[in-house]
Order: sequence, then C-alpha cells, then structure tokens
Amino acid sequence: MARTPDEFWQRQRIRVLTGHRVAGLDISNRRVRVSEPDGRERDEAYDLLMVATGSRPIVPSWENSRAAGVFSVKTLPDGPAIVSWLKDHPVREAVVIGGSYIGLEVTENLLARGVAVSLIEQAPELMGTLDADMGALVTRKTRALGVMVYTGESVQGLEAHDGVVSAVVTDRRTLPADVVILGMGVEPESTLWAAAGLPLGVRRAIPVNDRMETSVPGIWAAGDVTETRHLVARRTQYLPLATIANKGGRVAGLNIGGQEAHFPGAVGTAITRIGPWEIARTGLTERESTAAGIPSEAVTITANTKLGYFQDTGPITVKLVVEKTSHRLLGGQIVGTAGSGKRIDVLATALHMEARVETLLDLDLAYAPPFSDVWDPVQVAARQILHRL
Amino acid sequence: MARTPDEFWQRQRIRVLTGHRVAGLDISNRRVRVSEPDGRERDEAYDLLMVATGSRPIVPSWENSRAAGVFSVKTLPDGPAIVSWLKDHPVREAVVIGGSYIGLEVTENLLARGVAVSLIEQAPELMGTLDADMGALVTRKTRALGVMVYTGESVQGLEAHDGVVSAVVTDRRTLPADVVILGMGVEPESTLWAAAGLPLGVRRAIPVNDRMETSVPGIWAAGDVTETRHLVARRTQYLPLATIANKGGRVAGLNIGGQEAHFPGAVGTAITRIGPWEIARTGLTERESTAAGIPSEAVTITANTKLGYFQDTGPITVKLVVEKTSHRLLGGQIVGTAGSGKRIDVLATALHMEARVETLLDLDLAYAPPFSDVWDPVQVAARQILHRL
Repeated sequence: MARTPDEFWQRQRIRVLTGHRVAGLDISNRRVRVSEPDGRERDEAYDLLMVATGSRPIVPSWENSRAAGVFSVKTLPDGPAIVSWLKDHPVREAVVIGGSYIGLEVTENLLARGVAVSLIEQAPELMGTLDADMGALVTRKTRALGVMVYTGESVQGLEAHDGVVSAVVTDRRTLPADVVILGMGVEPESTLWAAAGLPLGVRRAIPVNDRMETSVPGIWAAGDVTETRHLVARRTQYLPLATIANKGGRVAGLNIGGQEAHFPGAVGTAITRIGPWEIARTGLTERESTAAGIPSEAVTITANTKLGYFQDTGPITVKLVVEKTSHRLLGGQIVGTAGSGKRIDVLATALHMEARVETLLDLDLAYAPPFSDVWDPVQVAARQILHRL
Repeated sequence: MARTPDEFWQRQRIRVLTGHRVAGLDISNRRVRVSEPDGRERDEAYDLLMVATGSRPIVPSWENSRAAGVFSVKTLPDGPAIVSWLKDHPVREAVVIGGSYIGLEVTENLLARGVAVSLIEQAPELMGTLDADMGALVTRKTRALGVMVYTGESVQGLEAHDGVVSAVVTDRRTLPADVVILGMGVEPESTLWAAAGLPLGVRRAIPVNDRMETSVPGIWAAGDVTETRHLVARRTQYLPLATIANKGGRVAGLNIGGQEAHFPGAVGTAITRIGPWEIARTGLTERESTAAGIPSEAVTITANTKLGYFQDTGPITVKLVVEKTSHRLLGGQIVGTAGSGKRIDVLATALHMEARVETLLDLDLAYAPPFSDVWDPVQVAARQILHRL
C-alpha cells in the first residue's frame, strides 16, 4: 500500500474509512448512504463529492465461474490469493482466459513457477489491442515460450469437482485446469451512479469534463470509473489505465482545492511484457483508424534494438499508422526485445503534439551503439511510410 | 564497413575512389585537384560537388603527443590499433585524457580488460556537456567503478622513452602511462574549404542552409564538417554527431537528386554509458541557457527506473531546464541505471515541438511495473518544476 489510513490522518488530516460501502447517492440533498462494517447504515452529508469507485474485473456468468481455483487479477489481495492456491494445491496445469495485458503477465509469472499454461483468446490473435499482424507476432513469440495458445476459441463454461475448478470448456475442446485465471478486462464500477439515475457514457463509464467535473454540480470523478477523451480519435473512450487515473485524480484534486487544472485526455498508450518480448502501443491501430473513418496508411519494419555487434542486440518490430491526406501520425505499435517497449513514448509524445510523420524523421533522438542504431527504428518506419504516401 | 567500394559500384553504379586525397578546390572552373594513391595529381571536373570531409580528432601540440602508444579514437583503424597495442605490450596503466563521450567509453572498455585507468578532465567535473551538478554525479559514479579521476587538471605534456609514451604530466602530477588515449573532441576537417578562401562558421565548420547547400552555387556539404542549426538556442552550433550527419546527408542527397528536402536542425541530443550508468542530454543545459541569455529555472529529481519491488530497479536522476516566462522546455539531462538513457528521447521530441513544461505532465507515456513508475521520472521532474515557476 502506498499509504495507510493512519498515515493519511497523520500527514494530511484526511479521514479514511475502510470497510465502509456507499450504498446510495442522494444528489438533491447532497448526502450519501453509508453501510458501515457492522452492517448498520447511516447518511453522510457532503459539500463536494469525489467519485473514484474504479473498475471491476469482467466475470462472465458461466457455469462454475465462481468456483474455488478461479481468480481475477484486480485488487491487491488477488495476488497473494493466487500464490496461496499455487502453494496449497498440486497445480500442474493452468488455464488463462484472455490474451491481453493481464493474461500475458499472469502467463509469464506462471511459466516462471514451472506451471504449464494454456492461454485462450477469443480473437484470432493474442493482444487484441494491436493490429492482427502485430498480434500474430505476439502469438508466435508466446507459443515459442512453451505456452499452449488457443486463439479464435470462446469459453463455454467451467467444470468443477466438489466446488473446485477442474477444466475449461471451449467451443472446440476441454482443457484440464488446476487453476483458472480470468484476464477478460474490466468494466467501470458505476453501479452507484446508475442507481441514482445519472447519465452514463461509453461502456457505462461516468462522463466528465476536462476539469474532471461530472454533469452534477459539486460532484467530481476520476480514474477507472470515468470516460477519457482520446486525443487522436477525438472522442471519448473507456481507457482504464493507471497513468490516466493518476492524471485525472491529480487534476480533480487541484480543482477541488481551488486551483485551475485541466486533463486534456490521453492517446491510448499501453505496454506489457511476456518473457523477453516487450509489447507496446499508442494512438490508433490501423483497424481503429478505419473504424473511426480516418483513411490511413501503415507500414511495419523490423530493425535491431542496438548496433549488430552487441551480443544483447535483438529484433524490434515497429508499425506506424498515418493519416493519408494530412500525414498526421495516428499511432504506433512495437514488439521487440529489451529496450524496445519504452520507445513507444516518442510516438506518444509526437501524438500529443499532433505531429506529421515528416517530423518523426527530423527528431534528434539519442544514438550511441549500446542504445540504438543511427536511425532509430521509429525513424526507419517513418522513412518507409513516406515512400508510400 | 557498411558497404565496400565494389558494392557501391555493383548496386548503385557509384564510383568510389579510396586512397585519393582532394588537395585543392577551384570553384571558378568547377574542378578539384586530386592526389592519387601513387602521389600523382590530376584535375577532376564536377557539375555538382558534395563536401563530406568530416572531422578530425583534436591533438594538442604537446611534447610527445605523437609518440607510440598515444591514440585518438575516430576512424575505423583506431580501434584495432589500440587492441593490438594492448596485446603486444604489458599495459597495466592507461591514462585517458578528456572526460566526455569518447573518454568514458574508452575507460569502460579498458576497465573491462583489467587495465587501471586514470582519467584526466580539465573541467571541474566529468561530462562537461552536462551541468556541473549532473557532471558531479558522473564523476562520483565513475570513481566508484575504480577509475582514478583527476578533474580540474590540465595536461602539460607527455613523457616518452625511445619514442614510446611513458607518462602524462599535468599541472599537478605525473601519471605513469603504458598507453594514452586522447578523447578531447573533434574539429571540422575544413582545410580544403579554408584554403579555397571560402567563408567558415562556428569553430571553422562550413555554413549550410536547410537544404544543405553551401554559399557556393553547386556545392553541397553535410556531416561533421558543417554547422548545424540548434533548434532551442535558435542559432548555429558545431554538433559533430552521427545522427545529425546521417540526416544532413540524406537531405543533401535528396536535393542533389532533384527532390526537395529540408533539415531544420537538431536539439543537441547525445547519450553514452559507463559501467551500469547511462548518461544522456538534450537541448540546453542551465549553463548554456544562461550563456544564450535565456532566463531559466531548473529542477533535479531522483526516482526509480521501474517499480521498487523489481530486483533490477535502480536510480534515475533527471534534470529539467525550462524558460522562466514562457515555460518552454529548454532541455533535459539524465543519469541512471539500465533503461534510463533513452528516456531523453521524450524530451528531445518535446523540444522539437517547442512544448511547454505543462505539456510534459499531460503526456500519455507507457506504464507497467517492469518499465516505469506510474508517473514517468520526466513527469515527476515536470511536476516539481511547476511548483517553482
């Protein structure tokens, strides 16, 4: 924990009530209905209210989806709970459902513990937030790590014996499972908001303006429960990411405290890792550009992370997506070995500035043989795409 | 070598003449005087001329500065020459003169070969291209690697026995030396240009416009022999770096070939490494800002390269320099462990876009525990500096 309730009180005179649940919201009278740890309910008045209820993992209503041995990975106790299960049970086979960020990270850690992992993904390739060609690269690399990857399969339900999960049933096969991890994403915890009859946005997230105010005077919101403006798509999206939650929380706090702060939005940057492979994305994929009605051109190149005479050099694949007429950068995707992933930040920064792809070529990026080639891979990609535009 | 003369001919019908020296330039008659390998001279006519004579290492006119065992590190044969010397002689003590990029890189490699290194730097701290506080960090880290660092000392001359270097004499002491490496920077190889009576710029480099044309019609130049426009300082500088040479060369080639290309300039990004320490800079330092008459504010913070529960996390120190009134980012400096150095690219990209420091806070940079903290260190620095502005 970053800070305990006691530290909040000692350092900032903030009263933190844990084990309390807010059961209802009465905006006319500016009151919340609080359910205390012993179950008693009482009303608490507010002048200003901040809603930061976050998100909850998606758990489909499959048969046995709440059996023992089935875990989501969202809150702090989820980690120790899984570790305890692995210690207390003879776990040889794990099934991970969902081949995106959480799914890959859990897979990596199960592999490190010597557990055989089957990874099920409904989409044709792992990492559905990448384009299919980059996703296919992740699928191949993940298989090469010894993971049984089943793409294009959907889970029908779970099997259990005596309340303990024993298998996962897909539309194609039954996979025995000593433990099942769900990595199917999250949804906003906006039950309170919906119950009060207040308007919800994309995927039932709470809409806020760039000061993090909701549509209700005196009520603010930030984090995984809110919508976020996507600066490249130029519309709101649901982007439940820690970086965005932190920025929104800071801006809400400054405004509540009487300052003037704004959170313009995000460009959809994310990063993860499986084994030696770093995977990152920012902006719009080719598929997302098409869906948003933006005509795009894309190029994918493979280069080295550093000069070839270093033993620890490795491949880095960069995909760039550019708007056809304006040459505006729309997004980028990277899959590569150590030192690849954080290069996405150059593209994320360029997206914030609405840079054209020509500008990428001019960037004075750091070069020395242990760090990069003279032309950084993102610039090699920019050079390639200019030939096509 | 990237390509041999034969490959140039086979692939592109480019005739490469090695061992030929251009001894004179006659712009009135569009001819160069060529000295052939056998010493004979002849004239060669040109329609268009590209000058890419590069730079040469600075070798002061000290006594014995050309003795055997004294090396510069500039051309391809310099590396093998040093390696041969180390093999053929009982080298126990090396003296490296100059504590910047080349000096540190050579020191790292000598240490790896078990040679005791004394490193002499005239300035008060190593890495004179950083501000003194960041340079002091590099000095401390380098000392901790076992290097004898002598800062604020200037070399008076070298001693030699039978034509072989034996010691380096500074204004404070005499250091025995079995080998001496000069890392004192480079200067433009503009002898030809000067001899033709043509105008020279900063540090005797050749001035060019953003199409890489010189002041002489039909003559182009690029690389270490030319000046470069510094986009933050908004004036020309001498920046002999491979990245800039490559960009300028590409633009010159495109223009000579009939296309229209421009090289707007650079922001002075550079990176190096010694032991586990990555060192990078971009834009203007605090000292350079003052020298350029730009009132600035600066802040230095230390954070972790990734979340604290990773064993391979380490410190990263970031210094930001910002223009006082406009809040325009002026530059950044980074010293830290693995994964630190290339973060300078976010700042370099922001400099190209003339970003204000407020924008750094909004950047949607990639976060996952193995890669970064939720607030990237460059954003932690941006937050700090905003408190001061």
